[in-house]
Amino acid sequence: MPANLMSKSKMKQLAEEASGIGEKGGDARVKEVTNRLLYRLMQVIDECDVSMEEFWAGVGFLAQTAKNNEFGLLVPGVALEHFLDLRLDEAEKKAGISGGTLRTIEGPLYVAGAPLSKGEARMDDGTDPGEPFVIEGQVRGEDGNIIPGAIVDIWHANSKGGYSFIDGEQAAYNLRRRIETDAKGRYLARSIVPNGYGCPPESCTRKAMTLLGRHAERPAHVHFFISAPGYRKLTTQFNFTGDKYLYTDFAFGTREELVVTLERVTDAAAIRNAGFNRPFAKAKFDVILIKERAGAPRTEVEREHVMAA
Amino acid sequence: MPANLMSKSKMKQLAEEASGIGEKGGDARVKEVTNRLLYRLMQVIDECDVSMEEFWAGVGFLAQTAKNNEFGLLVPGVALEHFLDLRLDEAEKKAGISGGTLRTIEGPLYVAGAPLSKGEARMDDGTDPGEPFVIEGQVRGEDGNIIPGAIVDIWHANSKGGYSFIDGEQAAYNLRRRIETDAKGRYLARSIVPNGYGCPPESCTRKAMTLLGRHAERPAHVHFFISAPGYRKLTTQFNFTGDKYLYTDFAFGTREELVVTLERVTDAAAIRNAGFNRPFAKAKFDVILIKERAGAPRTEVEREHVMAA
Repeated sequence: MPANLMSKSKMKQLAEEASGIGEKGGDARVKEVTNRLLYRLMQVIDECDVSMEEFWAGVGFLAQTAKNNEFGLLVPGVALEHFLDLRLDEAEKKAGISGGTLRTIEGPLYVAGAPLSKGEARMDDGTDPGEPFVIEGQVRGEDGNIIPGAIVDIWHANSKGGYSFIDGEQAAYNLRRRIETDAKGRYLARSIVPNGYGCPPESCTRKAMTLLGRHAERPAHVHFFISAPGYRKLTTQFNFTGDKYLYTDFAFGTREELVVTLERVTDAAAIRNAGFNRPFAKAKFDVILIKERAGAPRTEVEREHVMAA
Repeated sequence: MPANLMSKSKMKQLAEEASGIGEKGGDARVKEVTNRLLYRLMQVIDECDVSMEEFWAGVGFLAQTAKNNEFGLLVPGVALEHFLDLRLDEAEKKAGISGGTLRTIEGPLYVAGAPLSKGEARMDDGTDPGEPFVIEGQVRGEDGNIIPGAIVDIWHANSKGGYSFIDGEQAAYNLRRRIETDAKGRYLARSIVPNGYGCPPESCTRKAMTLLGRHAERPAHVHFFISAPGYRKLTTQFNFTGDKYLYTDFAFGTREELVVTLERVTDAAAIRNAGFNRPFAKAKFDVILIKERAGAPRTEVEREHVMAA
């Protein structure tokens, strides 16, 4: 079939009709976005000459992805979650906001309600044979002021790249902790160096990546939500220098400013002092939060999360 | 947040990267369509200033729709299935094909494997108290030649608007039959006049229609697949004049050329002759098929169907 069979006016008219643009009732915002979405979808179908079979194959793929609860994985995989970050960066710039730690994607694997402690926390349950890990940093405001009482909500994979509540192998909330910064705005987490995450072998997302000629792997990373009263919530991660997948993260989460070099500690006294029994890695991840201001685009995002129960 | 924050070049670059355009492996067609789809989606997000929360609410809605097995209902509801029909019409026109009975949407409720009989069939199982119905017609080719042995695959709702295998109330294959046309290309079905179909009260599709200020009802209709060796398969329906929802079908299935006026038969002798015990309705629906020709766009569409088992 040839491409570009339909006139723009016909597609516009059909999209408007389908979106109830001419109808009195309904939600104006839903109508507006639906209208543009349908028009653009029709454009894609027409410009790519999408056949009925291709269309329904695509619908079937999306349906299976949804049934696998994989939309949260596919969305970052096709760069849309990163795109939303880039847009929010631009919106902040326009609003005169700058100087804070960069945001990056949340990903699909956050679980609310992790144990909360003050100043520091042990994140792993002692069963992971991986490399011991210390993550420490200080949370400050854009003016350099320290922020005590900030909540640093950390989650990361184990040394096999698996997440508690997801891989079915770990104790509840393993490698998930909330730490309240101390009087000097500091937090410290003892954990295990995570491995990179790969999409499950049978996942729709991995199949899609294969069809796109891409891999389905993330470099190792540590997720953060950081929030404090009066400050804009920050969603971010850090990665490690030298990771095989650092600059080809399938989820587009890597940002140069968020790459940390791990310090390897092998000195016996230092190991003992840190409370470990073998060499460990250390990451320093300081955070700068931006004061909340009226009219600024929201950074708090309500979305569905994996449930703990 | 303001709209149009992102440059076209940035969106193009990101869409290409996410679609693996620069990568060697994968499926070239999947890459091409994914690339355009992502670019257009980013455009919609940017031009409508879609917030992260709105984005994830939309994703959540689509996920629930998929989990309810409703994509087959939502797609015609937002006119995309009709759009595919219009495109195929145009493609046929360009290929020099004309003169056949018009196509219209298949909808989501076809079930393969209905009982097959020659010349005529009784479609209902006798339990529906609705108005008895005779559907008859002749299948011919574009040159007027009659087509014996064509398979007329008919499915429709009962007098409450419900479908067998879907509503959980009817016997298997009730109101679903395949009839092979006789030596004169004719078929005749005895059945019950269907009511219009409405989206289930709790369905995502009905909720979407409400948000769009639209209703979620279809006028009464009878579905057909008609196929014969050497001819292009036809997917179509007919509607009835006077139906309340005739010109506002939420699924965009109505086409003027496919609207039939039901003849009401009240004469006692005619009722007896037709084998009924009360007044009945009669619809005449003749069909013209087009000869298959090399290079013409396909009309046979493989898509997922409701399973009989």
